[in-house]
Amino acid sequence: MTLDRRQILALAALAGGAGAFETASAEAHDAQGRMPPLPEDAPKIAMLVHPRMIALDLINPMTVFNILRSNIMLVGKTMEPAATDVRIPIGATHTFDQVPREVDVLFVPGGIMGTIAAMDDPETLTFLSDCGRRAKWVTSVCTGSLLLGAAGLLQGYRAASHWTVSDLLPKLGATKVDERVVIDRNRMTGGGATAGLDFGLTLAAKLVDEEAARRIQLILEYAPEPPFANGTPAQAGPERVATMRAGRPWMDAQALKAVEAAAERLGLPA
Amino acid sequence: MTLDRRQILALAALAGGAGAFETASAEAHDAQGRMPPLPEDAPKIAMLVHPRMIALDLINPMTVFNILRSNIMLVGKTMEPAATDVRIPIGATHTFDQVPREVDVLFVPGGIMGTIAAMDDPETLTFLSDCGRRAKWVTSVCTGSLLLGAAGLLQGYRAASHWTVSDLLPKLGATKVDERVVIDRNRMTGGGATAGLDFGLTLAAKLVDEEAARRIQLILEYAPEPPFANGTPAQAGPERVATMRAGRPWMDAQALKAVEAAAERLGLPA
Repeated sequence: MTLDRRQILALAALAGGAGAFETASAEAHDAQGRMPPLPEDAPKIAMLVHPRMIALDLINPMTVFNILRSNIMLVGKTMEPAATDVRIPIGATHTFDQVPREVDVLFVPGGIMGTIAAMDDPETLTFLSDCGRRAKWVTSVCTGSLLLGAAGLLQGYRAASHWTVSDLLPKLGATKVDERVVIDRNRMTGGGATAGLDFGLTLAAKLVDEEAARRIQLILEYAPEPPFANGTPAQAGPERVATMRAGRPWMDAQALKAVEAAAERLGLPA
Repeated sequence: MTLDRRQILALAALAGGAGAFETASAEAHDAQGRMPPLPEDAPKIAMLVHPRMIALDLINPMTVFNILRSNIMLVGKTMEPAATDVRIPIGATHTFDQVPREVDVLFVPGGIMGTIAAMDDPETLTFLSDCGRRAKWVTSVCTGSLLLGAAGLLQGYRAASHWTVSDLLPKLGATKVDERVVIDRNRMTGGGATAGLDFGLTLAAKLVDEEAARRIQLILEYAPEPPFANGTPAQAGPERVATMRAGRPWMDAQALKAVEAAAERLGLPA
């Protein structure tokens, strides 16, 4: 039954969405612009969807993996579509028990209130811990690394997170690194939100090769020109950072509480 | 009845999604991290959703506008969720006749096969032409500018598009400009796909002020570090560009045909 359902989904995807990004892997198109079925050895990528996630954290790397022609699984605790910051619900294609035993990539997007809730959910933590133990790459963007850490997957690893919460990483046994994309053995974590593009392309180069990643960068015309130099706390300056911090004491307290509870469960020193 | 439906949607949005991006407009949060209702004068932004669109083209600017606390309307020909490149269907919140007479922003995302289909759809063209005539800003990302052009909204304007199709802009009466974000009077068009972040922040600064846009840039940690210098045809070099072009003769022919048909309808010289 599970197999039937997946086959139906796969067929629906091919009929409906595939090829919508015209320039995707251009050389793979047939004369009518259709994409052939995914190859058997397409990278298997399990991307967590959880309630109150940040849609952009998922969509940017997912677009990269899609153009790379990966076997993308959106994995949820249930098939119930997950609410997102932009109020576009995102449905899972697989529940936890439907994910293959071995995947190439486990990916966790951010979304602070959603991350906090998931950090306290035994089923989610068990899935991540189990899947992450066997995955070739264990990855995240934005606050997703807190959830990886809560699942015990970042102990002894260098990792990035959103600047507002990255100070909490050491409580989960990780070394906080203020870089856009941090690779430590088979862990790859991205900084806040938009780091998902840099992360996705970096991972694409590892999964296939640099040339594939370069082509995707050209397809997505990723030659960014931010209108201001204001994307990091250092660029923004102490006044703006202080203003933002002042607006989120409740949120910060929730994050700290969730991290401390996770650290205790993992038997880490306070 | 229309009003009731909108009220229900607005209430659902407030209960479910708002505040998921914790750092959104931090100073507006209350002590429990909840966002207050949108102010009466929140920018009204009509974002087209059309079948086979590129999800990323929509989500990146939408995230910016959401943090800016805008009144975002996802506008479709029908309420039927639109298929996207990543196979995440995106539903409309408003049909064409439910959009207020005057909006601050009309936005069109890209998605070449979807764009081509929409360029031949009288209802979509009529909506865009009508809404765009009264909108304060007429905008697009990626191939969306071809659709604006087909609706007669770019005649005599400078505009950007995805590099694979930007040569077609002059056939629609526009001047092609190879820049990341092009502003000409009240038209603001972005380049390919990922230009949506630069575009969104640039427009946020116009809609509110530079300080608001800077804060959003910090929230989204938009300090990009592309892993390669490969985001433009010039960076990628002639060989990669030729490979990509060679893979899409059918697609290019379709785009040309749609543009020529639109140009004829607009009475433009061939």
